[in-house]
Amino acid sequence: MEFSIAQIATMLGGEVRGDASAKISMLSKIQDAKKGQVAFLSNPKYEQFIYTTQASAVIVKKDFQPKKEIETTLILVDDPYSSFTVLLEEYHKLISYQKSGIEHPSYQSDTAAVGKNIYRGAFSYIGNQVTIGDNVKIYPHVFIGDNTVIGTNTILHPNVKIYAGSRIGSNCVIHAGTVIGSDGFGFAPQGDGTYKTIPQLGNVLIEDNVTIGANTVIDCATMFGDSTIIRSGVKLDNLIQIAHNVEVGKNTVIAAQAGISGSTKVGENAMIAGQVGIAGHLVIANRTQIGAQAGISKSIKEEGQQILGYPAFDIKEYFRSYAVFKRLPELNDRLRELEKKMAEATATSANGQS
Amino acid sequence: MEFSIAQIATMLGGEVRGDASAKISMLSKIQDAKKGQVAFLSNPKYEQFIYTTQASAVIVKKDFQPKKEIETTLILVDDPYSSFTVLLEEYHKLISYQKSGIEHPSYQSDTAAVGKNIYRGAFSYIGNQVTIGDNVKIYPHVFIGDNTVIGTNTILHPNVKIYAGSRIGSNCVIHAGTVIGSDGFGFAPQGDGTYKTIPQLGNVLIEDNVTIGANTVIDCATMFGDSTIIRSGVKLDNLIQIAHNVEVGKNTVIAAQAGISGSTKVGENAMIAGQVGIAGHLVIANRTQIGAQAGISKSIKEEGQQILGYPAFDIKEYFRSYAVFKRLPELNDRLRELEKKMAEATATSANGQS
Amino acid sequence: MEFSIAQIATMLGGEVRGDASAKISMLSKIQDAKKGQVAFLSNPKYEQFIYTTQASAVIVKKDFQPKKEIETTLILVDDPYSSFTVLLEEYHKLISYQKSGIEHPSYQSDTAAVGKNIYRGAFSYIGNQVTIGDNVKIYPHVFIGDNTVIGTNTILHPNVKIYAGSRIGSNCVIHAGTVIGSDGFGFAPQGDGTYKTIPQLGNVLIEDNVTIGANTVIDCATMFGDSTIIRSGVKLDNLIQIAHNVEVGKNTVIAAQAGISGSTKVGENAMIAGQVGIAGHLVIANRTQIGAQAGISKSIKEEGQQILGYPAFDIKEYFRSYAVFKRLPELNDRLRELEKKMAEATATSANGQS
Repeated sequence: MEFSIAQIATMLGGEVRGDASAKISMLSKIQDAKKGQVAFLSNPKYEQFIYTTQASAVIVKKDFQPKKEIETTLILVDDPYSSFTVLLEEYHKLISYQKSGIEHPSYQSDTAAVGKNIYRGAFSYIGNQVTIGDNVKIYPHVFIGDNTVIGTNTILHPNVKIYAGSRIGSNCVIHAGTVIGSDGFGFAPQGDGTYKTIPQLGNVLIEDNVTIGANTVIDCATMFGDSTIIRSGVKLDNLIQIAHNVEVGKNTVIAAQAGISGSTKVGENAMIAGQVGIAGHLVIANRTQIGAQAGISKSIKEEGQQILGYPAFDIKEYFRSYAVFKRLPELNDRLRELEKKMAEATATSANGQS
Repeated sequence: MEFSIAQIATMLGGEVRGDASAKISMLSKIQDAKKGQVAFLSNPKYEQFIYTTQASAVIVKKDFQPKKEIETTLILVDDPYSSFTVLLEEYHKLISYQKSGIEHPSYQSDTAAVGKNIYRGAFSYIGNQVTIGDNVKIYPHVFIGDNTVIGTNTILHPNVKIYAGSRIGSNCVIHAGTVIGSDGFGFAPQGDGTYKTIPQLGNVLIEDNVTIGANTVIDCATMFGDSTIIRSGVKLDNLIQIAHNVEVGKNTVIAAQAGISGSTKVGENAMIAGQVGIAGHLVIANRTQIGAQAGISKSIKEEGQQILGYPAFDIKEYFRSYAVFKRLPELNDRLRELEKKMAEATATSANGQS
Repeated sequence: MEFSIAQIATMLGGEVRGDASAKISMLSKIQDAKKGQVAFLSNPKYEQFIYTTQASAVIVKKDFQPKKEIETTLILVDDPYSSFTVLLEEYHKLISYQKSGIEHPSYQSDTAAVGKNIYRGAFSYIGNQVTIGDNVKIYPHVFIGDNTVIGTNTILHPNVKIYAGSRIGSNCVIHAGTVIGSDGFGFAPQGDGTYKTIPQLGNVLIEDNVTIGANTVIDCATMFGDSTIIRSGVKLDNLIQIAHNVEVGKNTVIAAQAGISGSTKVGENAMIAGQVGIAGHLVIANRTQIGAQAGISKSIKEEGQQILGYPAFDIKEYFRSYAVFKRLPELNDRLRELEKKMAEATATSANGQS
């Protein structure tokens, strides 16, 4: 993939100052860029690099006024940072759309219905009665259990494992090693101290535009007809635990190693930081922001709160309490000092009265 | 799999009122059930649905007296909920016993000894001198290292990875992506700041009736002849860390993302909640209950305690302390106020005495 | 693999007392050892076992004086424990160097350049333009994405997944299920509440002598030319999260289930305990020791500190504060008591003055 500077400028609606014919094959940062690469200048503190950069082109703001001579070609645009982001995206699309065709050996049931323009990596497995939309990319070692449905343009990275009966939307990305639809953790205690497994017969439903990180686990719902649900636009990071019958609302973002226990419903546009734990059967209001490592043991009813702690409460109040916590030995000393003085005062006063 | 209502009633020891010949192929909840499905009515607040349900049959209590006309067929039993659970289990068994036979390509060493009625999924790997009992299900992408022994009826979900020399019992279920027998985390510090790897030569021993969730890791023991041990009936959730030489006692239940450090022994029938961390070389008494996210830094000797906190102590005392923690800024203010009053009082008193 | 006792003694520079021709095939602990095994005696409290052990040989200190008759053969050395460790290592090398050759089916791109003496397990995948050094072991189900470079003697356990463009050094060990190079968690909020994916175009760079546990995740850097960096000698445990653009300094050790957020730089020879969480964009000084489950929200500038808490501060101060925390209800009572006394005193005094 090579473009001329002129092509890139056209793509960005920008204007070229310098040699528009040079070829660009890669993007880079202005301080590191080499020949054949395009960089951008947005933050003025990097301006120094534009006078020495090896980049074949630099994207700059329309009104940029060089203070010294410049050797590189300039592409003048309204907003260099967002223009560069556009290029990044285009490049990424080119890269991720590269993979296509069928690699061998791979396994596809005769009863699977698979769309057009699929990438099916070696050692991938597509079970019975699976339905897969167009342009889906299935990397090596992916497992797709029976009766699963997958929408269009979804990317399953190496070794994603999808249990039978799952429903996954369009334009989703699931990273390597993630498990969709494993059994919920349900066991009925017996009189003799053992546990009996409660069969887990529901599934997982993932709507469109969901991104899921690596080695995350989403359990299936317990009952037939029930689903653990990840609504459209949700972004999950790595190593997250989503238990049976959880529902995560639209556009909610959850950071790495957080865990949500069974049957809890998280609202829309919430932000849950890393290593947060949420107990089961709770309701978390829309736009709740939960700080890292917090433990949530009660439902959050008011929308848009910021909370922290174990169990969590208002984040500002947590920090105020924690500031005093750090001085607790001193507080204890002051309290003891007061008790001593009080005892003396009482004694004196008793003395005075006698 | 289709059953007549008469067959289901026989299975449950129940009595049919209505058309006993209709066919049932699935279970559902009464409010969602469709034709061809069976539901149950146990909680009276769902009674309304029995008059409108599309279910072909509903399991009800023997003495159920309809208040209106009912179209669906009734199956009368002593306890509708537990009857339904029986059906769920039967159904689940049917589903999970469906998979059988050998899918290709899969890999099995010539020196492996494999029982009868095995399911061996595509791309699964069975190493040298492996012994596998009857009725074991090995899903696609499972890796079974050399010299491993696996009992009868055990299910290994897609991509379970079992290192060489592991011992796994009968009637176990291990979910996708879980790793059994990876190296313990043992490194000897050297004079120059680097670490030397301590060879990890023990194995993992998992007894019968153990269930393990997805993407969990159980490390092997350090020394030859030693094992990291998971006793019979233990239930482990997803993304759990079990370090080298740990022993988890019979029927203990551990929730997602908990971690147990090296050489710790957890007793029987303990309950460890999500994201709990337990330090190394500890002993945790039988029936200990550890609250979510708690950190355990000392052995728990007394049986049946409930603990929480970081480090953890009695759960009720934790909550009492935490209630005061939340008001610490106020306590601090009150202390300051008292100090001020005391200073005034002392001054007054000194004044009075002068 | 069988050795005579004479061969083992030569290996250890020791002297044999007894039958030097007996064969040894395994190592064991003195209390468990059987015929054909070698054990060691270092701690005097195990001396009793040397008089009854079934071991064919026991490694003892040069100056060891038996109190009773001994049947086993002795190997006399300067330091029995370290001699035994040498044997363990040799044995381990023998075991791990056993695997070699190509198992079928496995997948290797025509454009991959692979060194000598490789083990390539069944169902492993080597992508385009991949470069692999000599003596590398690639276990079954490993995925190596396009353009990846791997040094010599590195071991990739079953199902390690390496995204395209990664760089991995020599003498590294990566355990089962670990993911290298998945996308960083980067999303730009849009006006309508949805998020737009920021393309993740950097890679992961792992230097030499790095060991990584099972089911850990290391995300790639965001920008072209940038890397998430794991420096030489780093030891990572299981289920760890390393976010985009993180750098972990030389010989730093991180225990299971810890997580490091984006762009944080951890210094050299640091020790990070289990379940620790570190926020993004921080700098952690060399030799910092972070206690289990601690939460780090600010950079640590001074080297060699020990910290704990949430957020973390000096570990000794944390424990002092926590000791008072556990008695907070009592403190609260004492404060209330003082307030009562003060009120009485003030009343009395006011009374006295009236």
